[in-house]
Amino acid sequence: MAHSIAEIAQALGATAAGDVSLTICGAAEPASAGADDLALAMDPKYADGIGKGAARAALLWQGADWQALGLQAAIFAPRGRLAMAGLTRLLDAGPVIAPGIHAMALVDPSAKIADGAAIGPFVVIGADVVIGANARIASHVSIAEGARIGADALILQGARIGARVVIGDRFICQPGAVIGADGFSFVTPEKSGVEEIRQTLGQRAEVNAQSWGRIHSLGAVTIGDDVEIGANACIDRGTIRSTSIGDGSKLDNLVHVGHNVQVGRDCLLCGQVGIAGSSQIGDRVVLAGQCGVNDNIFVGNDVIAGGGTKIFTNAPAGRVLLGYPAVKMETHLEMQKALRRLPRMMKNLSQSPDKG
Amino acid sequence: MAHSIAEIAQALGATAAGDVSLTICGAAEPASAGADDLALAMDPKYADGIGKGAARAALLWQGADWQALGLQAAIFAPRGRLAMAGLTRLLDAGPVIAPGIHAMALVDPSAKIADGAAIGPFVVIGADVVIGANARIASHVSIAEGARIGADALILQGARIGARVVIGDRFICQPGAVIGADGFSFVTPEKSGVEEIRQTLGQRAEVNAQSWGRIHSLGAVTIGDDVEIGANACIDRGTIRSTSIGDGSKLDNLVHVGHNVQVGRDCLLCGQVGIAGSSQIGDRVVLAGQCGVNDNIFVGNDVIAGGGTKIFTNAPAGRVLLGYPAVKMETHLEMQKALRRLPRMMKNLSQSPDKG
Amino acid sequence: MAHSIAEIAQALGATAAGDVSLTICGAAEPASAGADDLALAMDPKYADGIGKGAARAALLWQGADWQALGLQAAIFAPRGRLAMAGLTRLLDAGPVIAPGIHAMALVDPSAKIADGAAIGPFVVIGADVVIGANARIASHVSIAEGARIGADALILQGARIGARVVIGDRFICQPGAVIGADGFSFVTPEKSGVEEIRQTLGQRAEVNAQSWGRIHSLGAVTIGDDVEIGANACIDRGTIRSTSIGDGSKLDNLVHVGHNVQVGRDCLLCGQVGIAGSSQIGDRVVLAGQCGVNDNIFVGNDVIAGGGTKIFTNAPAGRVLLGYPAVKMETHLEMQKALRRLPRMMKNLSQSPDKG
Repeated sequence: MAHSIAEIAQALGATAAGDVSLTICGAAEPASAGADDLALAMDPKYADGIGKGAARAALLWQGADWQALGLQAAIFAPRGRLAMAGLTRLLDAGPVIAPGIHAMALVDPSAKIADGAAIGPFVVIGADVVIGANARIASHVSIAEGARIGADALILQGARIGARVVIGDRFICQPGAVIGADGFSFVTPEKSGVEEIRQTLGQRAEVNAQSWGRIHSLGAVTIGDDVEIGANACIDRGTIRSTSIGDGSKLDNLVHVGHNVQVGRDCLLCGQVGIAGSSQIGDRVVLAGQCGVNDNIFVGNDVIAGGGTKIFTNAPAGRVLLGYPAVKMETHLEMQKALRRLPRMMKNLSQSPDKG
Repeated sequence: MAHSIAEIAQALGATAAGDVSLTICGAAEPASAGADDLALAMDPKYADGIGKGAARAALLWQGADWQALGLQAAIFAPRGRLAMAGLTRLLDAGPVIAPGIHAMALVDPSAKIADGAAIGPFVVIGADVVIGANARIASHVSIAEGARIGADALILQGARIGARVVIGDRFICQPGAVIGADGFSFVTPEKSGVEEIRQTLGQRAEVNAQSWGRIHSLGAVTIGDDVEIGANACIDRGTIRSTSIGDGSKLDNLVHVGHNVQVGRDCLLCGQVGIAGSSQIGDRVVLAGQCGVNDNIFVGNDVIAGGGTKIFTNAPAGRVLLGYPAVKMETHLEMQKALRRLPRMMKNLSQSPDKG
Repeated sequence: MAHSIAEIAQALGATAAGDVSLTICGAAEPASAGADDLALAMDPKYADGIGKGAARAALLWQGADWQALGLQAAIFAPRGRLAMAGLTRLLDAGPVIAPGIHAMALVDPSAKIADGAAIGPFVVIGADVVIGANARIASHVSIAEGARIGADALILQGARIGARVVIGDRFICQPGAVIGADGFSFVTPEKSGVEEIRQTLGQRAEVNAQSWGRIHSLGAVTIGDDVEIGANACIDRGTIRSTSIGDGSKLDNLVHVGHNVQVGRDCLLCGQVGIAGSSQIGDRVVLAGQCGVNDNIFVGNDVIAGGGTKIFTNAPAGRVLLGYPAVKMETHLEMQKALRRLPRMMKNLSQSPDKG
């Protein structure tokens, strides 16, 4: 679908220059752009590429001399990545899911599917499910009994929505995500080794044989508006109350959220993050890839943790964390710097004349 | 389904008081409990909530003054989490899977499905598969040729059971789990860089180009009785012998078990744990979330490892581990404490008059 | 299927001795081998097992005295694991997928499926998809519009191939893998806390509320020849250009590859490795299990990283890495050795008469 430079600039709230009636059909890196592509060069370091490609129009950094770059038109982005959000939304045709309910989908007669739905083949929708307007549900998805999903949902191939899960509007679910598996909650008849070492910090009186009784998950999962869940991510049901994810939070691929966890609003949980059972994550928390959060702790609002951080204890609001175990980022950097110097220091000390 | 207080107490092996004929239909946290819910307050700190909710009966800590709490009936739990196991089992209606074999399931004529099966739509069951009595198999599951599964299995949406996998009784498989993918086993024609650095601890003579030949997996996976596998977890087939998981072991979401691994009985492998190929895990081992186990090592019986522990070398029975690389938990705590003090110590040393 | 010793030796490029017309039907560990199995004893430490089993022929280490071991025939493997590649390929019957297109598969009329295809039940193949000769596609797979896959593909149960993904020849895809989910790319209208701390190394002026705008993924995924992708692994689409995986690279279960990432040739990414967006991985890179790679960095050719290594900064070619954060393997070992000695050293220093 073609868009004029004027139309794109307007959608981005950006200014444009040159022949704004020129139309483009896609976006590309400058050097590989064709004549119908908008070249993306939001930083002067990408300027060179424009001459190598065939673009006639570009999305440029603020103040760029577009005419010197040989362009016929330009859009100026004061904040490049923000412009990318608007531009890619405009150009994304989205997945192909035919309108209506596919003949090979199985929708329980008691389910309520609002107008505008597109439901693909081999989808299973259980009893009493409610799905809002304009849902797009790709092939192989299952939505179990009693689940409720808001308007404008996009649920991709093979995602699993469990029984009685409740989800807000504008939900995006990547392929293979599992929302509402049973929690991982087991108990031994006698006090277990894990319970013992939590009290003794590692000391064990004696080791007893133990087998595990299962605590079933009677709760569900509650998800707010504007949430996105990544491919093959897993969010478990709660034991009694529901596990919950707040409005605007985004979870990346292969993220694990344990039973009873409460995630706040506008959080980013990046790839392979894991949150153990019953922990609370505040609002606007950002956990970079492969972070881990211990069970039964809280992570305050606006906490940011770098990649691979393992948070074992409560983290106050606004804290920036790094390390295993997690400490303040600046403390981590000091500790690592000191640790790097430690082998040499020990060698020096061992050669020092006044060593004890 | 309603249950009387007397019936619940009997099922839990617990004592009850008050009007034990009173019936409840569900369980809830005290403050949000309705009149037909059993309030859960197994610790005095939850007592306050009871007055805020509408519960007439509660599951209380041993010795609680139930009448002072305004209740009509109470059950006393000497070990709260154990009572939760019994109570939630009683109240869990389980997933809805219609009895019989769904018209849209494809079951090979040579497969043997015992009595009492409930097999959902879009399920595929291969040649010579054997499935025990009372199996419940949800939609989109595939069970490949020659697999054998015991009685009372519950296999949830989209789980994948590979060819010739053998599983015991009372198996629970969460959605999306893959049991019996091929192992990750490759070899170079010449000695590879990985083999070299394992011998030299990091030194490399020269770097050679190499490409990878595939070692196919001829073995299968063998799983004992009472095993549960989490959502999107993966257990690979063995190369020659089978990968195995012992009776009573529980694996959480997104756990990875490599080819040839032997996991013992009654283990807990928590979310995102990974076990590399050919390692042996003893009985009653507990690995907290995001632990990793190196290939070709053993982890003894009753080992417990804290979250994120990376086990590179053999771990003796009963050891409590933490850290990357894993050390005894108490050693890890000492090391971290010392490392926290190190930057200041180094600063002091550098200002000391007698430094070398 | 039976194979003679002579035939196997020829396939492996190995020498054989004894009655090379003897046939075997499978391979087994020595002690559990039956009369029709080839016993695998490529190291003298396995010699004892041969007497305990019933094998008449074995795959032995170079120079073994096969007659003294009571065998009727033997094959000699100068490099055992390489022989295993050839042997297991010969003996692997592969998954059962009936030839032709199953009646319950949905193939768009515009898709081009080359000769020799075997496509299982409940498969969905979208518009304009192109699939090369001899494809084997197991049940429940989806291949979205415009995807192109080379010859001899094996795509296992429930794998998801996204729109416009391009894949080379001899592709192997384990169950549940998701290739071509949307990238995880979000932006705030104002500078976010994450952007700020990257510049200030942890200091924050003030914390602002922020919500996330979505950058859509217009790019696809491009995968070379001879690539294998593990069970439930995820490879995201690029934003503008495609995410790419080079020829001969192998990805294990639950690996996460973010948007725009470029992985070179002949790499091994082991279980649960995660690579954040826009990073570049060279050729022949080996990342052991649970490694993490930061976003927007490069990892040079022939880098090898041990289990759990977290790579935060550019890694030069040939480097052997370990640790969190990653350092040279030998540096990591020195640092850990020093850290182990640190608590005692600090105790000694605090008792020393000349402390400041």
